[in-house]
Amino acid sequence: QHERVLLGHGSGGKLSADLIQRVFLKELGNDVLSSLEDSATLALGSLEPAVDDARSGPRIAFTTDSFVVKPLFFPGGDIGKLAVFGTVNDLAVVGATPLYLSAAFILEEGFEIELLRRIVISMRHACDQAGVTLVTGDTKVVDRGKGDEVFITTTGIGLHAANHALSIRNARPGDQIIVSGTIGDHGMTIMSTREGIEFETALQSDTAPLNDLTRAMLDACPSIRVMRDPTRGGVSSTLNELATASNVGILLDEASIPVRPEVHSACEMLGLDPMYVANEGKLIVVVAEQDCQSLMKVMKQHPLGRDAAVIGNVTADHAGMVVMRTLVGGQRVVTMLAGEQLPRIC
Amino acid sequence: QHERVLLGHGSGGKLSADLIQRVFLKELGNDVLSSLEDSATLALGSLEPAVDDARSGPRIAFTTDSFVVKPLFFPGGDIGKLAVFGTVNDLAVVGATPLYLSAAFILEEGFEIELLRRIVISMRHACDQAGVTLVTGDTKVVDRGKGDEVFITTTGIGLHAANHALSIRNARPGDQIIVSGTIGDHGMTIMSTREGIEFETALQSDTAPLNDLTRAMLDACPSIRVMRDPTRGGVSSTLNELATASNVGILLDEASIPVRPEVHSACEMLGLDPMYVANEGKLIVVVAEQDCQSLMKVMKQHPLGRDAAVIGNVTADHAGMVVMRTLVGGQRVVTMLAGEQLPRIC
Ligand SMILES: Nc1ncnc2c1ncn2[C@@H]1O[C@H](COP(=O)(O)OP(=O)(O)OP(=O)(O)O)[C@@H](O)[C@H]1O
Ligand SMILES: Nc1ncnc2c1ncn2[C@@H]1O[C@H](COP(=O)(O)OP(=O)(O)OP(=O)(O)O)[C@@H](O)[C@H]1O
Ligand SMILES: [Mg+2]
Ligand SMILES: [Mg+2]
Ligand SMILES: [Mg+2]
Ligand SMILES: [Mg+2]
Ligand SMILES: [Mg+2]
Ligand SMILES: [Mg+2]
Repeated sequence: QHERVLLGHGSGGKLSADLIQRVFLKELGNDVLSSLEDSATLALGSLEPAVDDARSGPRIAFTTDSFVVKPLFFPGGDIGKLAVFGTVNDLAVVGATPLYLSAAFILEEGFEIELLRRIVISMRHACDQAGVTLVTGDTKVVDRGKGDEVFITTTGIGLHAANHALSIRNARPGDQIIVSGTIGDHGMTIMSTREGIEFETALQSDTAPLNDLTRAMLDACPSIRVMRDPTRGGVSSTLNELATASNVGILLDEASIPVRPEVHSACEMLGLDPMYVANEGKLIVVVAEQDCQSLMKVMKQHPLGRDAAVIGNVTADHAGMVVMRTLVGGQRVVTMLAGEQLPRIC
Repeated sequence: QHERVLLGHGSGGKLSADLIQRVFLKELGNDVLSSLEDSATLALGSLEPAVDDARSGPRIAFTTDSFVVKPLFFPGGDIGKLAVFGTVNDLAVVGATPLYLSAAFILEEGFEIELLRRIVISMRHACDQAGVTLVTGDTKVVDRGKGDEVFITTTGIGLHAANHALSIRNARPGDQIIVSGTIGDHGMTIMSTREGIEFETALQSDTAPLNDLTRAMLDACPSIRVMRDPTRGGVSSTLNELATASNVGILLDEASIPVRPEVHSACEMLGLDPMYVANEGKLIVVVAEQDCQSLMKVMKQHPLGRDAAVIGNVTADHAGMVVMRTLVGGQRVVTMLAGEQLPRIC
């Protein structure tokens, strides 16, 4: 047990999960918070005395993320786009229609206002693209050296459709596991931008709003069991969370996992495993075997699901563990990200 | 027009208003955002095809604030309490019942986890006191020297009762202006803690959840025109926002403005005007003259309104301006906070 915050406590892996359990859930835990879904689901009834039924009314999805990415601008995006799409995606993966966002800015004294404007314009385009409206905000300034240019916290509200029952607890043995496209693009883009590494083919962040894709998927297949965006900590950490929350095993087939050649080379050069690298515009989906092919068809018709692939299945064996059939033929256990691979990736 | 962010852009005064106009509203403006109320009001209809009416369903209030206060702990509170009560109050002053909060933490590498725990425990107590539930969160870590221990962004959802029409645009000539208690307590507490100044009587932050008081007030007097919490920028900045938004004048009577003697001395010693000093548990209220005395009675019966006072009235004259009848008999114009009086006050 660490006494001080380490960079790894922000990794999205094991240390993050430990800190959340040991401080936040321990002291603040309640049924909604402790479910650790990508968004909280809330029933908002009327508070009028005559119809005071907290269970009535629409079901709202509610989620928040802070963004501290470095550098602020990178191939394929910037902190503003991440801040809008990241929160849109946490609403989308719980099956909600994203509607409204708030944005709170912590500015460092001395930050250039024209850079701030570029970020804000990028947020407007991102809101338009995702079909959400930014309706409230806040602006604080910290003294030079006590922040880092700009941090943005977005919080989103979405509205649930009635006809789905998505939850990270819902995976069952026999279900298939799909990834919506290539993995590691965002993390390797930030990493190589930061290190000043150039590759033959330009890497680009995959940041994108997933709500149009998830809507098409849920319309076609309302019985999808789980959706999650594998952000910090990568696909490995997300699958481990899923295996734990659903109390099932996961068996992956390494050969089927889509990785761009340039991401593959960048990972080799830096000694990283793409399974632990952050994504910003990808989905992990768990679906019943009988619905898998029809869902894959819907996904592949969507620009953001063109490279979708079935990468494994859910097992009754080795509950709580993720196991991979490797390219060379053996099997290995895939754990959560243990340390801090790439600080400030989002 | 400044090219870089100044501390004053976080003051809650003139520079803050300029930056919000020139960057955020210019690039992101829409009817809800541009109204600049303490919370956005949203109609959330069902998205089901059969009843697709965005105007149906409950009216939600939605608001966000980042907290970067220094020091983290101070007489009467800490950053966690501020983060909960601050957001609760922005919901309360628009007439909503605060229900749910999110909290996003930006931690600096090296921050002590036991201090974080103390803050989180304080947030739990604050949530219990205000009757809200923290349902979702986020945790990011920045490298040493790129943050300052901990920043917290809270976002809140509340539910509007149907029977009020509060808005910063609603003040009308003849209306009375009430403050719910003594002014300047929070800001002078932070200031003197930071400067290491000791006063005979201990100063203490007034941070408190105002939703119980506002509920009692609205139950008794649903016709209240405006409520606002005079936080950063103090009572002067809030009244100037109000005068501009409602396009009315405001005439204050200095003798009637409640200031604790210890706040008064602290202000004198530091050359500050309590009208510009931040409050965290106070309300500015505008009410029709005929309802003023009954509302004052309700306020004075509540522990958080015991020292409530009528401090002035709304005029048709000098629209957009706040004028004060001073103790010595003259009149002076009270402008918005121009520079940065007290950085990182909340
Ligand atoms: N400080 C916190 N307090 C309470 N709950 C938290 C906190 N930090 C995270 N959580 C909860 O833990 C779960 C996982 O959070 P996490 O931030 O890893 O998810 P995410 O937002 O989907 O990922 P990312 O932040 O990488 O986009 C969520 O259910 C979230 O509500
Ligand atoms: N970065 C921003 N983007 C969009 N709107 C903003 C931004 N910052 C502030 N606003 C809007 O400006 C108005 C005033 O914000 P401000 O933060 O001063 O209010 P407050 O939260 O009541 O005060 P405090 O932050 O001192 O508690 C609000 O309506 C808010 O939504
Ligand atoms: Mg997520
Ligand atoms: Mg997220
Ligand atoms: Mg604010
Ligand atoms: Mg306010
Ligand atoms: Mg506020
Ligand atoms: Mg998060």
